[in-house]
Amino acid sequence: VPYRLKQLASEIGAELHGDPEGEVRSFAPLAGAQAGSISFLSGSRYRKFLKDTRATAVILAKEDLAACPTSALVCRDPYLAFAKVARLLSPEPAAPAAGIHASAVVDVTASVHPLASVGPHCVIEAGAILEEGAVLGPFCLVGRESSVGAYTRLVASVTLCARVRIGSRSLVHPGVVIGADGFGFANDAGRWLKIPQIGGVLIGNDVEIGANTTIDRGALEDTVIEDGVKLDNLVQIAHNVKIGAHTAVAGCVGISGSTKIGKHCAIGGASGIGGHLEITDGVIIGGMSRLNKSITRAGEYVSGTPVDTMHQWRKNSARFKHLDEMARRLAALEKKVGQP
Amino acid sequence: VPYRLKQLASEIGAELHGDPEGEVRSFAPLAGAQAGSISFLSGSRYRKFLKDTRATAVILAKEDLAACPTSALVCRDPYLAFAKVARLLSPEPAAPAAGIHASAVVDVTASVHPLASVGPHCVIEAGAILEEGAVLGPFCLVGRESSVGAYTRLVASVTLCARVRIGSRSLVHPGVVIGADGFGFANDAGRWLKIPQIGGVLIGNDVEIGANTTIDRGALEDTVIEDGVKLDNLVQIAHNVKIGAHTAVAGCVGISGSTKIGKHCAIGGASGIGGHLEITDGVIIGGMSRLNKSITRAGEYVSGTPVDTMHQWRKNSARFKHLDEMARRLAALEKKVGQP
Amino acid sequence: VPYRLKQLASEIGAELHGDPEGEVRSFAPLAGAQAGSISFLSGSRYRKFLKDTRATAVILAKEDLAACPTSALVCRDPYLAFAKVARLLSPEPAAPAAGIHASAVVDVTASVHPLASVGPHCVIEAGAILEEGAVLGPFCLVGRESSVGAYTRLVASVTLCARVRIGSRSLVHPGVVIGADGFGFANDAGRWLKIPQIGGVLIGNDVEIGANTTIDRGALEDTVIEDGVKLDNLVQIAHNVKIGAHTAVAGCVGISGSTKIGKHCAIGGASGIGGHLEITDGVIIGGMSRLNKSITRAGEYVSGTPVDTMHQWRKNSARFKHLDEMARRLAALEKKVGQP
Repeated sequence: VPYRLKQLASEIGAELHGDPEGEVRSFAPLAGAQAGSISFLSGSRYRKFLKDTRATAVILAKEDLAACPTSALVCRDPYLAFAKVARLLSPEPAAPAAGIHASAVVDVTASVHPLASVGPHCVIEAGAILEEGAVLGPFCLVGRESSVGAYTRLVASVTLCARVRIGSRSLVHPGVVIGADGFGFANDAGRWLKIPQIGGVLIGNDVEIGANTTIDRGALEDTVIEDGVKLDNLVQIAHNVKIGAHTAVAGCVGISGSTKIGKHCAIGGASGIGGHLEITDGVIIGGMSRLNKSITRAGEYVSGTPVDTMHQWRKNSARFKHLDEMARRLAALEKKVGQP
Repeated sequence: VPYRLKQLASEIGAELHGDPEGEVRSFAPLAGAQAGSISFLSGSRYRKFLKDTRATAVILAKEDLAACPTSALVCRDPYLAFAKVARLLSPEPAAPAAGIHASAVVDVTASVHPLASVGPHCVIEAGAILEEGAVLGPFCLVGRESSVGAYTRLVASVTLCARVRIGSRSLVHPGVVIGADGFGFANDAGRWLKIPQIGGVLIGNDVEIGANTTIDRGALEDTVIEDGVKLDNLVQIAHNVKIGAHTAVAGCVGISGSTKIGKHCAIGGASGIGGHLEITDGVIIGGMSRLNKSITRAGEYVSGTPVDTMHQWRKNSARFKHLDEMARRLAALEKKVGQP
Repeated sequence: VPYRLKQLASEIGAELHGDPEGEVRSFAPLAGAQAGSISFLSGSRYRKFLKDTRATAVILAKEDLAACPTSALVCRDPYLAFAKVARLLSPEPAAPAAGIHASAVVDVTASVHPLASVGPHCVIEAGAILEEGAVLGPFCLVGRESSVGAYTRLVASVTLCARVRIGSRSLVHPGVVIGADGFGFANDAGRWLKIPQIGGVLIGNDVEIGANTTIDRGALEDTVIEDGVKLDNLVQIAHNVKIGAHTAVAGCVGISGSTKIGKHCAIGGASGIGGHLEITDGVIIGGMSRLNKSITRAGEYVSGTPVDTMHQWRKNSARFKHLDEMARRLAALEKKVGQP
């Protein structure tokens, strides 16, 4: 179904410049767009593609309007407006038909809502619950006493071990493992004695969890992922971590045990966060940071060194091992010649 | 079944202060504990919760006894003592019934002990062996000529490719892949020529392997994980790595090919260890370290820079690229004014 | 089938020193080799094992010939020559028989070539295509409108979500997830609004993808992995990334959205590469590097600091936070005493 530009402008609260009757059916990046599609410009990186775009319309900010060769929808946050338009033009595919595939293995004590959908080769264990509209793709395991909320979808090969509760409208991508034992051992004269991991995992509504991410069950109490949290692929969430509502965690991040992360945080990819820390609300962590202390004030944080040629890096990094000595020599020199 | 405090004190060799007949049925953290539960205090981080705890008893060290408002079990290593008590109060859930689920596909040449348990949708290939008490959850693959030792459990969706041998009493969490081809290629005029990977994987007794961890088969000889090793989630073990007995590896660590790690080591989360290195026994590596040379002496090692605000970090990290030049200028100044 | 040394020398273009009729059946490392096996020496690390090797022959470079106690095949690139010999001595195991296992679930609109092999418990969705000689091990999902090219093998538990196209002769290891949604959200007054992810994934010929690696579908256009690319285990490829032909990516690397990597690059393990970057052809990135800007010139790059004892590191890393101040003080001193 095509949309007219005047409709879209109204839906997203944009100021329309150009043909109100222009029709768009799809969205595309500026460079590859064709007639009938709508594109967007956000930030300066792709501005160079604006003047030659063949899109029927472009969503952009006021300062880019003059350079736009076609109809424009002007708004304050073009990326957000684009998201809204894209959702209109690309509605979610219809859910699979309700019912339980013949190859699925469902325990007699499990409760599967008649409007839930259970795909091929799924396994649903004792006491598990699937609410209305829950969708399980192939090879999903819903372990003992776990529950999947209304309209939540486990795409494929998702493992909920035991006592994992997921809220409504959440989306869990393939290969995710939720509720495996945390990494808890006490050292007994050189050998590791396993500490029973008996907590569960509690996951809120509107959560999205990326492929092959792992979230361990709590040791005693639950590991908690609050409403609206978005986790990318290959993220590791250790036992008893709590992630506050609407926090986003990029790919390959590891969060160690018992750390509490606030609401509305953004953790950059491949960062490592130590255990037993507290990160307050509204903290942004740069990619690949090494965080080993709590953060009590909102803001942007990072660690690491800049990339360099191997040749230069070798020389500089060798000096890092003498930085303390350099600082002492500098202070001694200052003392000798008098501080400037 | 409840335990009396005098029983527990005797089991863990602790000195009991308080009511010897006091009963506990469960364990809980200090802050959330209720009557009938036992808690513990280890280190200073949670000391603030001691005075208000409602636990029936607390396991703690002598220096915390005075501040304990309830019965106390005093011992030298409260964390280890807690582990022992927790294991008493929370015995492992009963293993699933022996036998092979009707949906499993088992090759006629495989050998499955009558007291092993094979869950739904498992696949067991030619020449594979499952010993007494071995447990396979759903979706496990035991590939050609692989073996699973007595009372070892593959929780779910575990893949043993081929020629993977696991000892007794080991625990492998969901999504683990053991025995995939190592990353071995020779460069042939710009194209990568695959080197056949024909080794196996040899895993000892009492090993635990976390969710979605990968352990590659050896190129020629086996990749080896010795007895009592504990691997956390999302760890990558490359071909021909050897990990010594009772070493623990935290989440998201990558260990490159042919590296040998000693016994009783502890590798912090998200560390990267280069190839063809040797790490001696008793080495502790801090989280997120970048290790590119062998370590011949036991001790604690680390790399990286501390986290900082983005504003401060930008200024400091820019100087890192001139560290060698700074060192030369410092030396020149010292020469000019005379070393202090 | 044994090979005579004169045959192997001819196959790999090596100069034979020793017995042309000597027979070898297997290959082995220098230290563990027995009569009847061939070994190789590449680089200096393993040279110490040469003099005592019991291999029937050793592939080596001219400078090591004098120290070789047995027959030798001398060539310029012993590692490449070894790869060629290993492939002769260890041919790939025969593919499983063609046909579809009885437990597989195949949509009626899917097209499976009669000479393809579909293993136990596979699921093939609507419109999917398997070409001649394609092999699916157990638990593979070939999602809607995905295709698997001729002689490509999905080892086990591989998930192709939807619109994932893989070329010929590629090899995908267990646990790989291709085509999950990219991590795309717009911030709407503190909540994350999902941006529809409607692109596909396009993977070339002769690609190898390691265990538990994830490759997201594009947001609008495809994510692209060109011919001959080799990805190790636990690699994360975000939406709209493009990886040029014959590039190798080691384990645990994360590549953020829309980044383009050139041909013939090599990315060291556990490196993190930011989004929207361009890395030109022929770039080599050291292990665990943090890359947040484009690279326009071929060469070797790296970031990070060297590992040190915890004691030394604490002192030096504390100074890193004052590096800018140190640089200013140094400049002030130079000004005061006059530059040397």
